[in-house]
Amino acid sequence: MNEIKIFSPATVANVACGYDVLGFCLNTIGDEMIIRKVDKKGITITKIEGFNLPFETKLNVAGVSALAMYQALQPDCGFEIEIYKNIKPGSGIGSSAASAVGSVFGMNVLLGKPFNKTELAKFAMKGEALASTCEHADNIAPALFGGFTLVKGLKPLEILQIPSPDNLYATIIHPQIEIKTAESRAILPKEVKLQDAIEQWANVGSFIHSLHTNDYQLMKRSLHDCIVEPHRSKLIPYYNEVKQKTLDAGALGTNISGSGPSIFSLCEGIQTANLVKDAMEKIYSNTGIKFDIHISKINTEGIRIL
Amino acid sequence: MNEIKIFSPATVANVACGYDVLGFCLNTIGDEMIIRKVDKKGITITKIEGFNLPFETKLNVAGVSALAMYQALQPDCGFEIEIYKNIKPGSGIGSSAASAVGSVFGMNVLLGKPFNKTELAKFAMKGEALASTCEHADNIAPALFGGFTLVKGLKPLEILQIPSPDNLYATIIHPQIEIKTAESRAILPKEVKLQDAIEQWANVGSFIHSLHTNDYQLMKRSLHDCIVEPHRSKLIPYYNEVKQKTLDAGALGTNISGSGPSIFSLCEGIQTANLVKDAMEKIYSNTGIKFDIHISKINTEGIRIL
Repeated sequence: MNEIKIFSPATVANVACGYDVLGFCLNTIGDEMIIRKVDKKGITITKIEGFNLPFETKLNVAGVSALAMYQALQPDCGFEIEIYKNIKPGSGIGSSAASAVGSVFGMNVLLGKPFNKTELAKFAMKGEALASTCEHADNIAPALFGGFTLVKGLKPLEILQIPSPDNLYATIIHPQIEIKTAESRAILPKEVKLQDAIEQWANVGSFIHSLHTNDYQLMKRSLHDCIVEPHRSKLIPYYNEVKQKTLDAGALGTNISGSGPSIFSLCEGIQTANLVKDAMEKIYSNTGIKFDIHISKINTEGIRIL
Repeated sequence: MNEIKIFSPATVANVACGYDVLGFCLNTIGDEMIIRKVDKKGITITKIEGFNLPFETKLNVAGVSALAMYQALQPDCGFEIEIYKNIKPGSGIGSSAASAVGSVFGMNVLLGKPFNKTELAKFAMKGEALASTCEHADNIAPALFGGFTLVKGLKPLEILQIPSPDNLYATIIHPQIEIKTAESRAILPKEVKLQDAIEQWANVGSFIHSLHTNDYQLMKRSLHDCIVEPHRSKLIPYYNEVKQKTLDAGALGTNISGSGPSIFSLCEGIQTANLVKDAMEKIYSNTGIKFDIHISKINTEGIRIL
């Protein structure tokens, strides 16, 4: 096998209470990529469709992660990468992570899987760093592993797969405004109140417990964020309205996806996910801001071969 | 039934990563209490053995919690309380929580269980507040529910029972020096670094996951505390030595029990728990400081009728 086509999924990082550590994987939106093993050494990006991104390997997220892996393994071949981008860069649903993960996942398969997923995540983080100025893994982890993930630590990188109930859906609205990840990080305080931190780690603990016990109501009571949301929500127009109306419509929780501007809701069942979609649509239809809405079951598989 | 004898267990709060929210329950150390239903209205403390504590109801932790419940229910009887105290006040293993929980648990049984455990915890917190100037539930929760508990929130009070592996033991050393809970709380900063808070909630999440998955090694990697330990450990002589040597002896984690001065280790298996005991003993035997050491399996039942 010299060529592989893959689906590299969009992801939601932070998941309300779990800033920088929690994430989950989507099923209905993601990039497609073709990775091709060629005789000519090096990494070449041969095609990019969907969005205007740099072809130069060192300036492209998928290229940078591919290079990191390539340099570590120094194989006797090269790779061509075709990127069919569906996830808009800067949308807050792991666009750069999808690219970063896609190239290394594909190359790894073509090379006979010399690396495990955690090792792939390390290479992908080099790509992610290009997009956000720091290496983080909260989108990369769910994109690679699927389902819900907890990045326990970065040094050494440790990713935990957390089980989740079968009937869990996400509804995500992407208002087409631009928020840079770096800017969105800069807005956060360097220090937080100990009391707020305690509330947050209680919620992380109870959220993990709710996933293990399929307890949707506990999930609902855990999906809060007193650390990041107060700062970042200001950057997203109509955030409070969307939050209120989606909760009214039955969402278990609504919060900022990654560094925004996308907003996600978690819902028990497709019916509620659809009601939440209607609520989001109703608010944004009157704003003049363009938007996309996606509904997805939690993707428990993660990135996959098509 | 007009009289009940109960075992009210010692508990370990905080559990390294979970300051103010996590706790677990011990089996081999605890107070005994006799609660007696009498015609004469009101709450009377008729006997205290073991330690010198106030008989006046309003100044006694067990009395205050009993009064809170008594006033809520206004029963057509009164209660006498005998306290056989084995847990030294100020030892950091939930001495006041054991007293606070014991009286309300006993009264509740004698009254036909009008209250559930969470409701009992609320009354017990009134007693706890007398001892530590603020209402907290991280010792009360494991004393009442047994096993590992997560206090998800105080308003409203929500206590989660977390499963734990069968072969988990705790070794606890109580160096007989005095640290007041209030003083030990005052030493903590009001604000913490966001990066430290993130590390802490990653550890809380992974610790909860480790309990659900019986993953001792993950438990070991999660039992860290970058928030409280750096401050409070200074108040406990030989803390660093105890920590190092108990980890060398195979402990999964060693940290401050509650607000100290007791130090606990969690261990896989009784054999390791004994090695850890030896390591603690060896260090403290040369210090001139009196100490007790306890080994206990995790008490999954909590407070019980004898």
